[in-house]
Amino acid sequence: MSIFTPEVSIIIKEARPEDAVKLIEYTKIVGAQTDNLSFGKEGAGDTPEVEEFIKRIGSDSKSVMYFAWKNDDIVGCANISSMKRRMSHRANFAISVAKSEWGSGIGSALLEKCISFAKDNEIEIINLDTRSDNFRAISLYKKFGFVKIGRMPAFSKINGEYIDADLMYLDLREKSNNRRKIEAFERLEAIRRENKKEIDFNKEREEAMNKKHKIQP
Amino acid sequence: MSIFTPEVSIIIKEARPEDAVKLIEYTKIVGAQTDNLSFGKEGAGDTPEVEEFIKRIGSDSKSVMYFAWKNDDIVGCANISSMKRRMSHRANFAISVAKSEWGSGIGSALLEKCISFAKDNEIEIINLDTRSDNFRAISLYKKFGFVKIGRMPAFSKINGEYIDADLMYLDLREKSNNRRKIEAFERLEAIRRENKKEIDFNKEREEAMNKKHKIQP
Repeated sequence: MSIFTPEVSIIIKEARPEDAVKLIEYTKIVGAQTDNLSFGKEGAGDTPEVEEFIKRIGSDSKSVMYFAWKNDDIVGCANISSMKRRMSHRANFAISVAKSEWGSGIGSALLEKCISFAKDNEIEIINLDTRSDNFRAISLYKKFGFVKIGRMPAFSKINGEYIDADLMYLDLREKSNNRRKIEAFERLEAIRRENKKEIDFNKEREEAMNKKHKIQP
Repeated sequence: MSIFTPEVSIIIKEARPEDAVKLIEYTKIVGAQTDNLSFGKEGAGDTPEVEEFIKRIGSDSKSVMYFAWKNDDIVGCANISSMKRRMSHRANFAISVAKSEWGSGIGSALLEKCISFAKDNEIEIINLDTRSDNFRAISLYKKFGFVKIGRMPAFSKINGEYIDADLMYLDLREKSNNRRKIEAFERLEAIRRENKKEIDFNKEREEAMNKKHKIQP
Protein backbone atom coordinates (compact mmCIF):
# COMPACT_ATOMS: atom_id res chain seq x y z
CA MET A 1 0.00 0.00 0.00
CA SER A 2 1.37 3.43 -0.81
CA ILE A 3 0.15 6.96 -0.38
CA PHE A 4 1.55 9.10 -3.18
CA THR A 5 2.43 12.72 -2.78
CA PRO A 6 4.19 14.82 -5.43
CA GLU A 7 7.54 14.49 -3.61
CA VAL A 8 7.75 11.19 -1.83
CA SER A 9 5.67 8.11 -1.30
CA ILE A 10 4.86 6.37 1.97
CA ILE A 11 4.97 2.58 1.84
CA ILE A 12 3.19 0.44 4.43
CA LYS A 13 4.79 -2.96 5.02
CA GLU A 14 4.60 -5.74 7.60
CA ALA A 15 7.36 -5.61 10.24
CA ARG A 16 10.39 -7.92 9.87
CA PRO A 17 12.81 -8.80 12.72
CA GLU A 18 15.64 -7.09 10.79
CA ASP A 19 13.72 -3.78 11.10
CA ALA A 20 14.37 -3.77 14.89
CA VAL A 21 17.15 -1.13 14.79
CA LYS A 22 15.06 1.17 12.59
CA LEU A 23 12.07 0.68 14.88
CA ILE A 24 14.11 1.60 17.98
CA GLU A 25 15.38 4.76 16.22
CA TYR A 26 11.78 5.61 15.38
CA THR A 27 10.46 4.95 18.93
CA LYS A 28 13.16 7.26 20.35
CA ILE A 29 12.00 10.02 17.99
CA VAL A 30 8.24 9.65 18.60
CA GLY A 31 8.80 8.98 22.32
CA ALA A 32 10.54 12.39 22.59
CA GLN A 33 7.93 14.22 20.48
CA THR A 34 4.83 13.59 22.61
CA ASP A 35 3.70 12.15 25.91
CA ASN A 36 0.96 10.15 24.20
CA LEU A 37 2.80 6.81 24.16
CA SER A 38 3.70 4.15 26.71
CA PHE A 39 7.39 5.13 26.42
CA GLY A 40 9.41 8.36 26.31
CA LYS A 41 12.64 9.46 24.56
CA GLU A 42 14.34 6.27 25.78
CA GLY A 43 12.35 4.38 23.13
CA ALA A 44 10.77 0.95 23.31
CA GLY A 45 13.59 -1.38 24.39
CA ASP A 46 16.91 -2.76 23.12
CA THR A 47 17.58 -4.62 19.85
CA PRO A 48 17.22 -8.24 21.08
CA GLU A 49 14.01 -7.36 22.95
CA VAL A 50 12.47 -5.58 19.97
CA GLU A 51 13.60 -8.32 17.54
CA GLU A 52 11.98 -10.91 19.82
CA PHE A 53 8.80 -8.80 19.96
CA ILE A 54 8.57 -8.54 16.14
CA LYS A 55 9.23 -12.29 15.81
CA ARG A 56 6.54 -13.12 18.36
CA ILE A 57 3.99 -10.98 16.52
CA GLY A 58 5.01 -12.52 13.18
CA SER A 59 4.62 -16.07 14.48
CA ASP A 60 1.10 -15.43 15.84
CA SER A 61 -1.51 -15.85 13.11
CA LYS A 62 -3.85 -13.36 14.80
CA SER A 63 -1.28 -10.59 15.44
CA VAL A 64 0.41 -8.19 13.05
CA MET A 65 2.63 -5.10 13.02
CA TYR A 66 2.82 -2.60 10.16
CA PHE A 67 5.41 0.10 9.53
CA ALA A 68 4.90 3.21 7.38
CA TRP A 69 8.19 3.83 5.56
CA LYS A 70 9.32 7.16 4.09
CA ASN A 71 12.48 6.49 2.12
CA ASP A 72 14.61 4.49 4.59
CA ASP A 73 12.90 5.63 7.76
CA ILE A 74 9.93 4.41 9.73
CA VAL A 75 7.46 7.29 10.21
CA GLY A 76 4.50 5.33 11.57
CA CYS A 77 3.80 2.06 13.31
CA ALA A 78 0.66 0.15 14.25
CA ASN A 79 -0.03 -3.30 15.59
CA ILE A 80 -2.79 -5.73 16.42
CA SER A 81 -2.00 -8.12 19.31
CA SER A 82 -4.34 -11.06 19.80
CA MET A 83 -5.46 -12.31 23.20
CA LYS A 84 -5.58 -15.83 24.59
CA ARG A 85 -8.19 -18.45 25.47
CA ARG A 86 -11.67 -17.06 26.19
CA MET A 87 -10.52 -13.66 24.92
CA SER A 88 -9.06 -14.93 21.63
CA HIS A 89 -11.90 -13.23 19.71
CA ARG A 90 -10.39 -9.90 20.85
CA ALA A 91 -7.17 -8.03 20.03
CA ASN A 92 -5.43 -4.89 21.23
CA PHE A 93 -4.51 -2.09 18.85
CA ALA A 94 -1.70 0.44 19.25
CA ILE A 95 -0.45 3.14 16.87
CA SER A 96 2.04 5.98 16.62
CA VAL A 97 2.93 8.44 13.86
CA ALA A 98 5.96 10.75 13.69
CA LYS A 99 4.91 14.34 14.38
CA SER A 100 6.29 15.50 11.01
CA GLU A 101 3.66 13.31 9.31
CA TRP A 102 0.61 14.21 11.39
CA GLY A 103 -2.40 15.03 9.22
CA SER A 104 -0.94 13.19 6.22
CA GLY A 105 -3.36 10.26 6.42
CA ILE A 106 -0.74 7.77 7.62
CA GLY A 107 -2.71 7.11 10.83
CA SER A 108 -5.87 6.33 8.87
CA ALA A 109 -3.95 4.14 6.42
CA LEU A 110 -2.30 2.14 9.23
CA LEU A 111 -5.57 1.76 11.14
CA GLU A 112 -7.36 0.64 7.96
CA LYS A 113 -4.68 -2.02 7.34
CA CYS A 114 -5.04 -3.29 10.91
CA ILE A 115 -8.85 -3.44 10.78
CA SER A 116 -8.67 -5.26 7.48
CA PHE A 117 -6.16 -7.75 8.96
CA ALA A 118 -8.45 -8.25 11.97
CA LYS A 119 -11.48 -8.93 9.75
CA ASP A 120 -9.50 -11.45 7.69
CA ASN A 121 -8.34 -13.26 10.83
CA GLU A 122 -11.60 -13.72 12.74
CA ILE A 123 -10.92 -11.00 15.28
CA GLU A 124 -14.33 -9.77 16.41
CA ILE A 125 -13.48 -6.98 18.84
CA ILE A 126 -10.56 -4.52 18.71
CA ASN A 127 -9.68 -2.74 21.97
CA LEU A 128 -7.47 0.27 22.48
CA ASP A 129 -6.54 2.87 25.03
CA THR A 130 -5.66 6.49 24.40
CA ARG A 131 -4.94 9.56 26.53
CA SER A 132 -8.30 11.12 27.36
CA ASP A 133 -6.97 14.49 26.13
CA ASN A 134 -5.65 13.22 22.77
CA PHE A 135 -8.56 14.47 20.65
CA ARG A 136 -6.72 13.96 17.39
CA ALA A 137 -6.41 10.23 18.11
CA ILE A 138 -9.92 9.89 19.60
CA SER A 139 -11.36 11.64 16.53
CA LEU A 140 -9.54 9.15 14.24
CA TYR A 141 -10.81 6.17 16.24
CA LYS A 142 -14.39 7.46 16.22
CA LYS A 143 -14.19 7.93 12.45
CA PHE A 144 -13.49 4.19 12.17
CA GLY A 145 -16.38 3.28 14.49
CA PHE A 146 -14.63 2.89 17.85
CA VAL A 147 -16.87 3.45 20.89
CA LYS A 148 -15.77 4.61 24.37
CA ILE A 149 -16.04 2.05 27.20
CA GLY A 150 -14.92 4.31 30.03
CA ARG A 151 -12.21 6.58 31.36
CA MET A 152 -9.47 4.91 33.40
CA PRO A 153 -8.01 7.25 36.03
CA ALA A 154 -4.21 7.44 36.38
CA PHE A 155 -3.70 5.06 33.46
CA SER A 156 -0.13 6.29 33.03
CA LYS A 157 2.31 8.28 35.13
CA ILE A 158 4.70 10.61 33.33
CA ASN A 159 7.24 12.60 35.35
CA GLY A 160 5.06 12.24 38.43
CA GLU A 161 1.90 13.38 36.64
CA TYR A 162 -1.06 11.00 36.41
CA ILE A 163 -2.72 10.76 32.98
CA ASP A 164 -6.23 9.36 32.41
CA ALA A 165 -6.98 7.16 29.41
CA ASP A 166 -10.12 6.42 27.42
CA LEU A 167 -10.72 2.74 26.74
CA MET A 168 -12.44 2.11 23.40
CA TYR A 169 -13.61 -0.85 21.33
CA LEU A 170 -14.57 -1.57 17.75
CA ASP A 171 -17.15 -4.30 17.13
CA LEU A 172 -16.36 -6.18 13.91
CA ARG A 173 -19.07 -8.81 14.30
CA GLU A 174 -21.14 -8.79 11.14
CA LYS A 175 -24.76 -8.24 11.74
CA SER A 176 -27.86 -6.83 10.18
CA ASN A 177 -29.36 -3.59 11.42
CA ASN A 178 -32.19 -5.53 13.05
CA ARG A 179 -29.71 -7.87 14.75
CA ARG A 180 -27.97 -4.78 16.15
CA LYS A 181 -31.28 -3.46 17.52
CA ILE A 182 -32.13 -6.83 19.07
CA GLU A 183 -28.70 -6.97 20.71
CA ALA A 184 -28.96 -3.39 21.98
CA PHE A 185 -32.36 -4.28 23.48
CA GLU A 186 -30.96 -7.47 25.03
CA ARG A 187 -28.07 -5.51 26.50
CA LEU A 188 -30.44 -3.00 28.09
CA GLU A 189 -32.55 -5.86 29.44
CA ALA A 190 -29.43 -7.55 30.83
CA ILE A 191 -28.40 -4.32 32.60
CA ARG A 192 -31.95 -3.99 34.01
CA ARG A 193 -31.93 -7.63 35.23
CA GLU A 194 -28.43 -7.16 36.57
CA ASN A 195 -29.41 -4.06 38.54
CA LYS A 196 -32.44 -5.92 39.88
CA LYS A 197 -30.33 -8.96 40.81
CA GLU A 198 -27.79 -6.68 42.47
CA ILE A 199 -30.55 -4.99 44.47
CA ASP A 200 -31.91 -8.44 45.43
CA PHE A 201 -28.41 -9.63 46.30
CA ASN A 202 -27.75 -6.59 48.51
CA LYS A 203 -31.19 -6.92 50.14
CA GLU A 204 -30.56 -10.58 50.88
CA ARG A 205 -27.15 -9.78 52.34
CA GLU A 206 -28.62 -6.98 54.44
CA GLU A 207 -31.35 -9.31 55.73
CA ALA A 208 -28.72 -11.91 56.59
CA MET A 209 -26.70 -9.23 58.43
CA ASN A 210 -29.81 -8.02 60.29
CA LYS A 211 -30.63 -11.60 61.25
CA LYS A 212 -27.06 -12.16 62.41
CA HIS A 213 -27.14 -9.02 64.54
CA LYS A 214 -30.76 -9.60 65.55
CA ILE A 215 -31.97 -6.32 64.06
CA GLN A 216 -35.67 -6.31 63.19
CA PRO A 217 -36.47 -4.46 59.94
CA MET B 1 -1.96 -16.10 57.68
CA SER B 2 -4.61 -18.64 58.68
CA ILE B 3 -8.36 -18.59 59.07
CA PHE B 4 -9.35 -21.03 61.82
CA THR B 5 -12.54 -23.02 61.78
CA PRO B 6 -13.40 -25.79 64.27
CA GLU B 7 -12.42 -28.53 61.76
CA VAL B 8 -9.69 -27.33 59.49
CA SER B 9 -7.56 -24.27 58.96
CA ILE B 10 -6.91 -22.44 55.72
CA ILE B 11 -3.34 -21.30 55.23
CA ILE B 12 -2.41 -18.53 52.80
CA LYS B 13 1.09 -18.79 51.34
CA GLU B 14 3.07 -17.30 48.48
CA ALA B 15 3.21 -19.50 45.35
CA ARG B 16 6.34 -21.59 44.71
CA PRO B 17 7.27 -23.11 41.30
CA GLU B 18 6.93 -26.60 42.81
CA ASP B 19 3.22 -25.89 43.44
CA ALA B 20 2.59 -25.92 39.66
CA VAL B 21 1.00 -29.41 39.57
CA LYS B 22 -1.30 -28.56 42.49
CA LEU B 23 -2.24 -25.27 40.84
CA ILE B 24 -3.15 -27.00 37.55
CA GLU B 25 -5.32 -29.52 39.47
CA TYR B 26 -7.01 -26.58 41.18
CA THR B 27 -7.56 -24.58 37.94
CA LYS B 28 -9.20 -27.65 36.35
CA ILE B 29 -11.61 -27.85 39.29
CA VAL B 30 -12.52 -24.14 39.45
CA GLY B 31 -12.53 -23.89 35.64
CA ALA B 32 -15.23 -26.58 35.53
CA GLN B 33 -17.25 -25.10 38.42
CA THR B 34 -18.06 -21.68 36.93
CA ASP B 35 -17.77 -19.66 33.75
CA ASN B 36 -16.37 -16.70 35.68
CA LEU B 37 -12.71 -17.28 34.82
CA SER B 38 -10.52 -16.84 31.75
CA PHE B 39 -10.25 -20.65 31.40
CA GLY B 40 -12.64 -23.64 31.59
CA LYS B 41 -12.31 -27.26 32.75
CA GLU B 42 -9.10 -27.58 30.71
CA GLY B 43 -7.36 -25.52 33.42
CA ALA B 44 -4.68 -22.86 33.04
CA GLY B 45 -1.90 -24.56 31.02
CA ASP B 46 0.64 -27.35 31.33
CA THR B 47 3.26 -27.86 34.06
CA PRO B 48 6.27 -26.13 32.38
CA GLU B 49 4.09 -23.14 31.40
CA VAL B 50 2.61 -22.77 34.88
CA GLU B 51 6.01 -23.28 36.56
CA GLU B 52 7.42 -20.57 34.30
CA PHE B 53 4.49 -18.28 35.17
CA ILE B 54 5.01 -18.75 38.94
CA LYS B 55 8.77 -18.16 38.53
CA ARG B 56 8.17 -14.98 36.52
CA ILE B 57 5.83 -13.61 39.17
CA GLY B 58 8.29 -14.57 41.95
CA SER B 59 11.18 -12.81 40.23
CA ASP B 60 9.25 -9.54 39.77
CA SER B 61 9.45 -7.40 42.90
CA LYS B 62 6.06 -5.79 42.14
CA SER B 63 4.12 -9.00 41.42
CA VAL B 64 2.91 -11.73 43.75
CA MET B 65 0.72 -14.85 43.78
CA TYR B 66 -0.94 -16.29 46.88
CA PHE B 67 -2.54 -19.70 47.35
CA ALA B 68 -5.12 -20.60 50.01
CA TRP B 69 -4.32 -24.15 51.16
CA LYS B 70 -6.76 -26.52 52.85
CA ASN B 71 -4.75 -29.55 53.96
CA ASP B 72 -2.81 -30.48 50.81
CA ASP B 73 -5.06 -28.79 48.27
CA ILE B 74 -5.23 -25.31 46.85
CA VAL B 75 -8.75 -23.91 47.35
CA GLY B 76 -8.12 -20.30 46.38
CA CYS B 77 -5.66 -18.28 44.34
CA ALA B 78 -5.02 -14.57 43.80
CA ASN B 79 -2.31 -12.58 42.14
CA ILE B 80 -1.05 -9.08 41.55
CA SER B 81 0.78 -8.55 38.22
CA SER B 82 2.69 -5.34 37.80
CA MET B 83 2.81 -3.36 34.56
CA LYS B 84 5.74 -1.86 32.70
CA ARG B 85 7.19 1.57 32.00
CA ARG B 86 4.73 4.46 32.27
CA MET B 87 2.18 2.07 33.78
CA SER B 88 4.49 0.64 36.44
CA HIS B 89 2.48 2.41 39.16
CA ARG B 90 -0.42 0.07 38.26
CA ALA B 91 -0.99 -3.68 38.65
CA ASN B 92 -3.66 -6.17 37.60
CA PHE B 93 -5.47 -8.31 40.12
CA ALA B 94 -7.07 -11.72 39.53
CA ILE B 95 -8.70 -14.14 41.98
CA SER B 96 -10.54 -17.45 42.14
CA VAL B 97 -11.95 -19.53 44.99
CA ALA B 98 -13.18 -23.15 44.85
CA LYS B 99 -16.98 -23.26 44.96
CA SER B 100 -16.91 -25.43 48.11
CA GLU B 101 -15.30 -22.50 49.96
CA TRP B 102 -17.50 -19.66 48.75
CA GLY B 103 -18.70 -17.47 51.60
CA SER B 104 -15.90 -18.68 53.90
CA GLY B 105 -13.94 -15.42 53.78
CA ILE B 106 -11.10 -16.84 51.67
CA GLY B 107 -11.79 -14.30 48.90
CA SER B 108 -11.57 -11.39 51.34
CA ALA B 109 -8.42 -12.82 52.95
CA LEU B 110 -6.68 -13.26 49.56
CA LEU B 111 -7.72 -9.80 48.37
CA GLU B 112 -6.53 -8.24 51.65
CA LYS B 113 -3.11 -9.94 51.27
CA CYS B 114 -2.82 -8.64 47.71
CA ILE B 115 -3.80 -5.07 48.62
CA SER B 116 -1.33 -5.12 51.49
CA PHE B 117 1.42 -6.40 49.14
CA ALA B 118 0.54 -3.65 46.64
CA LYS B 119 0.75 -0.94 49.33
CA ASP B 120 4.12 -2.27 50.50
CA ASN B 121 5.49 -2.26 46.95
CA GLU B 122 4.52 1.22 45.75
CA ILE B 123 1.66 0.09 43.56
CA GLU B 124 -0.75 3.02 43.39
CA ILE B 125 -3.62 1.65 41.30
CA ILE B 126 -5.00 -1.91 41.19
CA ASN B 127 -7.08 -2.81 38.13
CA LEU B 128 -9.32 -5.81 37.63
CA ASP B 129 -12.02 -7.15 35.35
CA THR B 130 -14.99 -9.28 36.32
CA ARG B 131 -18.08 -10.66 34.59
CA SER B 132 -20.73 -7.92 34.74
CA ASP B 133 -23.18 -10.49 36.16
CA ASN B 134 -20.86 -11.79 38.92
CA PHE B 135 -22.47 -9.85 41.79
CA ARG B 136 -20.73 -11.88 44.46
CA ALA B 137 -17.34 -10.79 43.12
CA ILE B 138 -18.39 -7.19 42.39
CA SER B 139 -19.78 -6.90 45.93
CA LEU B 140 -16.45 -8.10 47.36
CA TYR B 141 -14.48 -5.61 45.25
CA LYS B 142 -16.76 -2.73 46.23
CA LYS B 143 -16.32 -3.66 49.89
CA PHE B 144 -12.58 -3.08 49.44
CA GLY B 145 -13.10 0.26 47.68
CA PHE B 146 -12.93 -0.72 44.01
CA VAL B 147 -14.79 1.63 41.64
CA LYS B 148 -16.25 0.75 38.23
CA ILE B 149 -14.57 2.28 35.16
CA GLY B 150 -16.95 0.91 32.54
CA ARG B 151 -18.52 -2.16 31.03
CA MET B 152 -16.59 -3.83 28.22
CA PRO B 153 -18.89 -5.57 25.73
CA ALA B 154 -17.99 -9.11 24.60
CA PHE B 155 -15.01 -9.24 26.94
CA SER B 156 -14.98 -13.04 26.79
CA LYS B 157 -16.57 -15.66 24.54
CA ILE B 158 -17.62 -18.94 26.13
CA ASN B 159 -19.15 -21.65 23.94
CA GLY B 160 -20.12 -19.05 21.39
CA GLU B 161 -21.75 -16.75 23.96
CA TYR B 162 -20.37 -13.23 24.46
CA ILE B 163 -19.91 -12.13 28.07
CA ASP B 164 -19.54 -8.49 29.17
CA ALA B 165 -17.08 -7.51 31.88
CA ASP B 166 -16.91 -4.65 34.36
CA LEU B 167 -13.52 -2.96 34.57
CA MET B 168 -12.74 -1.66 38.07
CA TYR B 169 -9.89 0.10 39.87
CA LEU B 170 -8.74 0.69 43.41
CA ASP B 171 -6.85 3.90 44.13
CA LEU B 172 -4.16 3.30 46.79
CA ARG B 173 -2.62 6.77 46.60
CA GLU B 174 -2.60 8.20 50.07
CA LYS B 175 -4.52 11.38 50.40
CA SER B 176 -6.55 13.39 52.80
CA ASN B 177 -10.29 13.72 52.38
CA ASN B 178 -9.80 17.28 51.17
CA ARG B 179 -7.21 16.15 48.64
CA ARG B 180 -9.78 13.64 47.34
CA LYS B 181 -12.38 16.38 46.96
CA ILE B 182 -9.90 18.65 45.17
CA GLU B 183 -8.98 15.84 42.80
CA ALA B 184 -12.63 14.95 42.14
CA PHE B 185 -13.27 18.63 41.34
CA GLU B 186 -10.18 18.77 39.09
CA ARG B 187 -11.34 15.62 37.29
CA LEU B 188 -14.76 17.15 36.60
CA GLU B 189 -13.08 20.34 35.40
CA ALA B 190 -10.79 18.32 33.13
CA ILE B 191 -13.79 16.50 31.63
CA ARG B 192 -15.56 19.85 31.11
CA ARG B 193 -12.45 21.34 29.45
CA GLU B 194 -12.01 18.18 27.42
CA ASN B 195 -15.58 18.28 26.15
CA LYS B 196 -15.14 21.93 25.28
CA LYS B 197 -11.83 21.27 23.48
CA GLU B 198 -13.42 18.37 21.63
CA ILE B 199 -16.28 20.60 20.53
CA ASP B 200 -13.75 23.23 19.41
CA PHE B 201 -11.69 20.57 17.64
CA ASN B 202 -14.73 19.24 15.78
CA LYS B 203 -15.87 22.76 14.91
CA GLU B 204 -12.42 23.60 13.55
CA ARG B 205 -12.38 20.40 11.50
CA GLU B 206 -15.85 21.13 10.16
CA GLU B 207 -14.83 24.65 9.20
CA ALA B 208 -11.77 23.27 7.42
CA MET B 209 -13.97 20.78 5.58
CA ASN B 210 -16.46 23.50 4.64
CA LYS B 211 -13.62 25.69 3.40
CA LYS B 212 -12.21 22.78 1.39
CA HIS B 213 -15.59 22.09 -0.17
CA LYS B 214 -16.38 25.82 -0.42
CA ILE B 215 -19.50 25.53 1.75
CA GLN B 216 -20.49 28.78 3.42
CA PRO B 217 -21.81 28.31 6.96
